[in-house]
Amino acid sequence: MLQFDILQTDPASSDGAYLGSYARRGRLKLNHGVVETPVFMPVGTYGTVKGVMPQSLEDMGAQIILGNTFHLWMRPGLEVMQQFDGLHRFENWHKPILTDSGGFQVWSLGEMRKISEEGVKFSSPVNGDKLFLTPEGSMQIQTTLNSDIVMQFDECTPYVSLDPKSKGQLTTEQEARASMELSLRWARRCQAEFKRLANPNALFGIVQGGMFEHLRDESLAGLEELNFPGIAVGGVSVGEPKEDMQRLMRHCGPRLPANKPHYLMGVGAPEDLVYGVQQGFDMFDCVMPTRNARNGHLFTRFGDLKIRNARHKNDERPIDETCGCYACAGRSGTPYSQGGREGFSRAYLHHLDRCGEMLGPMLSTVHNLHFYLNLMREIRSALDQHAFADLVQRFHADRARGV
Amino acid sequence: MLQFDILQTDPASSDGAYLGSYARRGRLKLNHGVVETPVFMPVGTYGTVKGVMPQSLEDMGAQIILGNTFHLWMRPGLEVMQQFDGLHRFENWHKPILTDSGGFQVWSLGEMRKISEEGVKFSSPVNGDKLFLTPEGSMQIQTTLNSDIVMQFDECTPYVSLDPKSKGQLTTEQEARASMELSLRWARRCQAEFKRLANPNALFGIVQGGMFEHLRDESLAGLEELNFPGIAVGGVSVGEPKEDMQRLMRHCGPRLPANKPHYLMGVGAPEDLVYGVQQGFDMFDCVMPTRNARNGHLFTRFGDLKIRNARHKNDERPIDETCGCYACAGRSGTPYSQGGREGFSRAYLHHLDRCGEMLGPMLSTVHNLHFYLNLMREIRSALDQHAFADLVQRFHADRARGV
Repeated sequence: MLQFDILQTDPASSDGAYLGSYARRGRLKLNHGVVETPVFMPVGTYGTVKGVMPQSLEDMGAQIILGNTFHLWMRPGLEVMQQFDGLHRFENWHKPILTDSGGFQVWSLGEMRKISEEGVKFSSPVNGDKLFLTPEGSMQIQTTLNSDIVMQFDECTPYVSLDPKSKGQLTTEQEARASMELSLRWARRCQAEFKRLANPNALFGIVQGGMFEHLRDESLAGLEELNFPGIAVGGVSVGEPKEDMQRLMRHCGPRLPANKPHYLMGVGAPEDLVYGVQQGFDMFDCVMPTRNARNGHLFTRFGDLKIRNARHKNDERPIDETCGCYACAGRSGTPYSQGGREGFSRAYLHHLDRCGEMLGPMLSTVHNLHFYLNLMREIRSALDQHAFADLVQRFHADRARGV
Repeated sequence: MLQFDILQTDPASSDGAYLGSYARRGRLKLNHGVVETPVFMPVGTYGTVKGVMPQSLEDMGAQIILGNTFHLWMRPGLEVMQQFDGLHRFENWHKPILTDSGGFQVWSLGEMRKISEEGVKFSSPVNGDKLFLTPEGSMQIQTTLNSDIVMQFDECTPYVSLDPKSKGQLTTEQEARASMELSLRWARRCQAEFKRLANPNALFGIVQGGMFEHLRDESLAGLEELNFPGIAVGGVSVGEPKEDMQRLMRHCGPRLPANKPHYLMGVGAPEDLVYGVQQGFDMFDCVMPTRNARNGHLFTRFGDLKIRNARHKNDERPIDETCGCYACAGRSGTPYSQGGREGFSRAYLHHLDRCGEMLGPMLSTVHNLHFYLNLMREIRSALDQHAFADLVQRFHADRARGV
């Protein structure tokens, strides 16, 4: 089940000085609940968003989280997933879940895998077992996981050619075309299997085509024939320069079918999210907020902050003075800038990091995820109020200020 | 400031079959709040109880936590502690705190330290700096930390002799006497310095004397002359057999001054806490609930459980079916045995452990601390209702049942 309604679009200014963007404010209804878009989806690879309690995720307003099909297939495995009727009850998360197809993970195994028309042969990184993942297999696993959004099995076209004779050259048009066409054929097989399994959830197709606009167009045209209820753009943020990523976002975003949700996979930094919304994307996921938190890299309204830096040793201010998360503002949620003094200081977080204490990553993860979720909340609110252009301007000015 | 009131003692049964124990139900008023006793105090070595948010500690009903003077002196150091007016604001914990003296930690450095009448010379384990800790120095640091309960600087008499010529023999009566007498002289110096510093909190003396009852008696007599507002028993749980620990608990507990709080340092397993309460102890601390949680060792009403064990792979039950903690019962707090189904399964916790996910230790720590804090809550309630003997009987029967 999937129902997608567009509530607002970003209008031009009355004096014509602002032409509007492709940004949309939407509402996505799925089997486990409603998701307000644009939305950021925290990544819960092994059935847990690393370093954070489900309870905190709820409190921060997370609406939908990711699970990784490949990882969950390896551990705990399908038998346990079946026993729990899928991922929701197992991980105690009762709102929507999106699962990827496992394609990106087997592709990332490099030397350990072999791709053919039928699927991908690889050795389990957990126990060395010889395994075979196909479009049909991916659909079967995701049906067992009972995720609200199922992703088609695709081949993620690499930025640098995988041909050993290419000596690190970029993927050629020919290689990218072959890969994109394989993904299209797999899309068709996924759709057939998804239907055969009578999966009650929603299957998304994935636009591939590497760095080539015309291949992206062909991929999109092929997917449109299949009429998936949602469309993703994959194969970005795979090592290409930022300009190429933005070029693809600018090219693909506005061309996606207007009445369907648009998901930009694996992106990105806060700036990328704002840029993506401008190009008409509705859904984003990325490990940055959680992974960076564990490395002491914190996002704030006024730029990023490395808590390991000695300059924080005596700093009594919270990470972000305008932030209402538990780390910055304690239980009351009153930001420091509004007189709240319940948060944890940078000095304390610096100390936790230095001592290798778990509470450091725990508080940092809460903060970073809150920052991402709150940014999307502010974007939705700005779109509701026809004030998105102002938000974009303020966002860039604030982020440039420095923390 | 310290005020201690005994609210109830454990009475004999009306038919004379039960003679009563030394257990007491008390109330301890300190500068940062009131502590109901008997109490378990979670250990927050570096200004954080490992693996748990202050928010969760509050929710679990923690009344007082520990800080380690030695560790906090090393990191973040006194300059930061001074800037934050002590430990409370730094670590965002606004209820009472007890700090140890640092004596146990410098003693644990082994080869790296040298004890004299004046104090202990040692090399910093953080940066190798030559340092010197004295009774006066410990009082100065603890005054800076502004802990509600300050512990005297003492020498922890070892179980096995430190004399290199002794070849692993037990500490002799002569060695234990010398050590105990040194601790007594240091107690006097601590008290003088504590007074000179006009520390507004409460200083506890520590009974030493190794495994020798008569030395324990001499130590206690010496401390009673100094009239500390609270008395601790130290130098237990230092490697001696359980029978020796219990012998010392039985010997010391009933002899401590009745109108003062009795603190049994560094003890112990759930059974030790119940035994300690029976012998008249009011306060306990131990790293077991937090450290064991991080190793997948979970305490339950019906015995202990190793979550790493493969038998949990498909177990849908929570850790403890009667437990109301967030890990076992979710936000509602309704235990599984009462129909609650919001908790996390053993299967899920087993999976988290296998994947090395942070959420595993996070949930396990919440559970183990809740178990300890709840056990003490049940003990207090039983004492209030003159039903302590029943509780002890039920506790042992339940723990023997197996989980």
